[in-house]
Amino acid sequence: MIDETHDAARTSWVESATGHRDFPIQNLPFGIFSTADRGPRPGVAIGDLILDLAGIASLLPNTARDALGHASLNALFGLASRDRIELRRRLSALLSDIGQRTEIEPWLHPACECTMHLPATIGDYTDFYVGIHHANNIGRQFRPDNPLLPNYKWIPIGYHGRASSVRPSGVPVTRPNGQRKAPDDAAPNFGPSRRLDYELELGVWIGQGNDLGAPIPIGEAGEHVVGLCLLNDWSARDFQAWEYQPLGPFLAKNFHTTVSPWVVTSEALAPFRLPQPARPEGDPAPLPYLLDDRDQQHGALAIELSVTLSSAAMRGAGLPPVVLSRGPASNMYWTVAQIVAHHASNGCNLNPGDLLGTGTISAPDKDGFGSLMEISRGGATPLVLPTGESRAFLGDGDELTLMGTASAAGFVSIGFGACAATILPARS
Amino acid sequence: MIDETHDAARTSWVESATGHRDFPIQNLPFGIFSTADRGPRPGVAIGDLILDLAGIASLLPNTARDALGHASLNALFGLASRDRIELRRRLSALLSDIGQRTEIEPWLHPACECTMHLPATIGDYTDFYVGIHHANNIGRQFRPDNPLLPNYKWIPIGYHGRASSVRPSGVPVTRPNGQRKAPDDAAPNFGPSRRLDYELELGVWIGQGNDLGAPIPIGEAGEHVVGLCLLNDWSARDFQAWEYQPLGPFLAKNFHTTVSPWVVTSEALAPFRLPQPARPEGDPAPLPYLLDDRDQQHGALAIELSVTLSSAAMRGAGLPPVVLSRGPASNMYWTVAQIVAHHASNGCNLNPGDLLGTGTISAPDKDGFGSLMEISRGGATPLVLPTGESRAFLGDGDELTLMGTASAAGFVSIGFGACAATILPARS
Repeated sequence: MIDETHDAARTSWVESATGHRDFPIQNLPFGIFSTADRGPRPGVAIGDLILDLAGIASLLPNTARDALGHASLNALFGLASRDRIELRRRLSALLSDIGQRTEIEPWLHPACECTMHLPATIGDYTDFYVGIHHANNIGRQFRPDNPLLPNYKWIPIGYHGRASSVRPSGVPVTRPNGQRKAPDDAAPNFGPSRRLDYELELGVWIGQGNDLGAPIPIGEAGEHVVGLCLLNDWSARDFQAWEYQPLGPFLAKNFHTTVSPWVVTSEALAPFRLPQPARPEGDPAPLPYLLDDRDQQHGALAIELSVTLSSAAMRGAGLPPVVLSRGPASNMYWTVAQIVAHHASNGCNLNPGDLLGTGTISAPDKDGFGSLMEISRGGATPLVLPTGESRAFLGDGDELTLMGTASAAGFVSIGFGACAATILPARS
Repeated sequence: MIDETHDAARTSWVESATGHRDFPIQNLPFGIFSTADRGPRPGVAIGDLILDLAGIASLLPNTARDALGHASLNALFGLASRDRIELRRRLSALLSDIGQRTEIEPWLHPACECTMHLPATIGDYTDFYVGIHHANNIGRQFRPDNPLLPNYKWIPIGYHGRASSVRPSGVPVTRPNGQRKAPDDAAPNFGPSRRLDYELELGVWIGQGNDLGAPIPIGEAGEHVVGLCLLNDWSARDFQAWEYQPLGPFLAKNFHTTVSPWVVTSEALAPFRLPQPARPEGDPAPLPYLLDDRDQQHGALAIELSVTLSSAAMRGAGLPPVVLSRGPASNMYWTVAQIVAHHASNGCNLNPGDLLGTGTISAPDKDGFGSLMEISRGGATPLVLPTGESRAFLGDGDELTLMGTASAAGFVSIGFGACAATILPARS
């Protein structure tokens, strides 16, 4: 639903919001922040500032007020979408009406002085595999004869990930130790990953859940999604190749997952929906439980994703990060509604605060590949950085940053904020 | 450590505890129970009764008292093992000293009048695959040429499961709908699983956790285990065969997992440790991070596991359940300490209340197979029940029960209580 909160002419009395790359008044993403003097609490990003929602609780709708008195957003996520829409409209009005400035301004904090936390306590984290170009690229390296398995075009392939090791942007990633066995090694050995990689994904935050045994029909799946973030599914490719059969990735991926800390709501993203790209000639139609006309018309997302890298030496030399890739989120073979409906189709219960990853979103060409495994073709063609350093995979000290921007003609673009982390050396 | 709480001569003034199959005074497992008049709270099983621990808090050690004032045992699980040992010794003393009877008796409830809940809020659930006979049997059906993959004897293979759908014994299981494709079907279709199965496993409850990035050395892994339960990893084999490549089982297993509700503590199990069986000639030694002398000497468990089934028609005819299998838990290729150390070896953080499944524990011969997939050889050789009904896989109305008993010469045997559930028909 597009309403006055999306109006391109609407501006905020928070000056930094106007023209802000990520957080103009048309966005209003939710997150959990803390300040030096006070612990984690709900906030909304507006320009370069964060508004403390508990502080202005008396100005907010009743339902939202009760849901905002916690150090996580799970209760807010559990509200009916009409209650979140009401909250969004109120916040948009308060931040655009200059008459509210005096009352609200004391509750604004410079974002650069705040610490961001995970927006919710994650009950379960599931990662999908809907980026078909990634599935093809990676599949070719693990199974040269058989890159895309026969189920791929029938099932939104997914697997359970580790909730406990999801961290917000900014928390460093320690290079993991683990078992790896090169094809010509006689036996595996244990040590720091030599093929540490990132994966560019969108994260999906689940709102209202479903009871165990009660599937979510595809036509209702969108109502169970609170919003999106960026997600980096850090991957140790050497561990993955050795461990993943027959039960899938485990220690190769559960040592750390980074998310951007702001939840860009489904409401904020309403203007940026696209028709799901037509399936290539010869591909099967989705089975009925995954097929919904409205979803086919509006299920894709007009979001441009990008990845940059800077090595410690680059930062030392004052060099800017290099762009590793750039591509549209519409390279998803399955929509967000389809992965939600599939996940619950067997009766599996989702809960507010559950996190889904889309899987790596790669574009068909190299400029849009969403992992180093693809960019360096499994390590065969390393990148050369401006310092002359070579990168087949990530080095210690590397800082990796995902960004995303949603754009559509006639609307103000909105963004996700950074999803960034630096690699620390392995423990000895 | 074996102490006075294990003394075979010790008896309780709770008469039903003496000679009790599962819960003599030598066991004292922890759980969360509720009564008609009061909600979930911590209890300990003694004979046919449950002792309300909050009710006798003033008699318990300080550290335990603070940890017991919740509707879950996560805080108790997070205590140092010395604190749990102190609590165990106190409970054993209180329940054996007749002088305490008057004060304690008002806090005892008949177990048959109580409802059991999950013992803890499960942060993450991970399932392993350490039953080597099961891995061989199942592997042969999914990959006839390649039943046991090359990594099996190097890595305790595991994958992440779904925490939200774990339920205590007694909660019925709804037959899931899902995609399945028989080998000679042209395309998959969606409907109720036709190959619904159980898996006989032990569950491992994690106690104190580790920080992200800080592995748990194998020599310390045992201290991170609070205790064990029985676990049934319900599996839809038709969904599994179609969906599991390349990322592992997902909807085939995440619709429901049943655990026995009592946590049989590591302390209670101390007398029932065995040397880990020697690896067959030619198998590799575990890598150093998985090898610990003490674990090799004491890492296996003298637990006899059994599975029974009764169909609705059998119960209607007053027939007793049939035994599907019986076998020792020592058929684990990897120890509990090894799966814990492996899980955290890459820095993955475990938390109090996390649940690990061992994977299906099958004996080498058919009498000890831990799933119908093995017993019926993938459906080819169905069981015939006393009613004449045939079972390749589970039918609606079937009740499946796992039981387990730990025994050792000179010690009183202890058990887990039932891990049982009945199959409800699929939603239409």
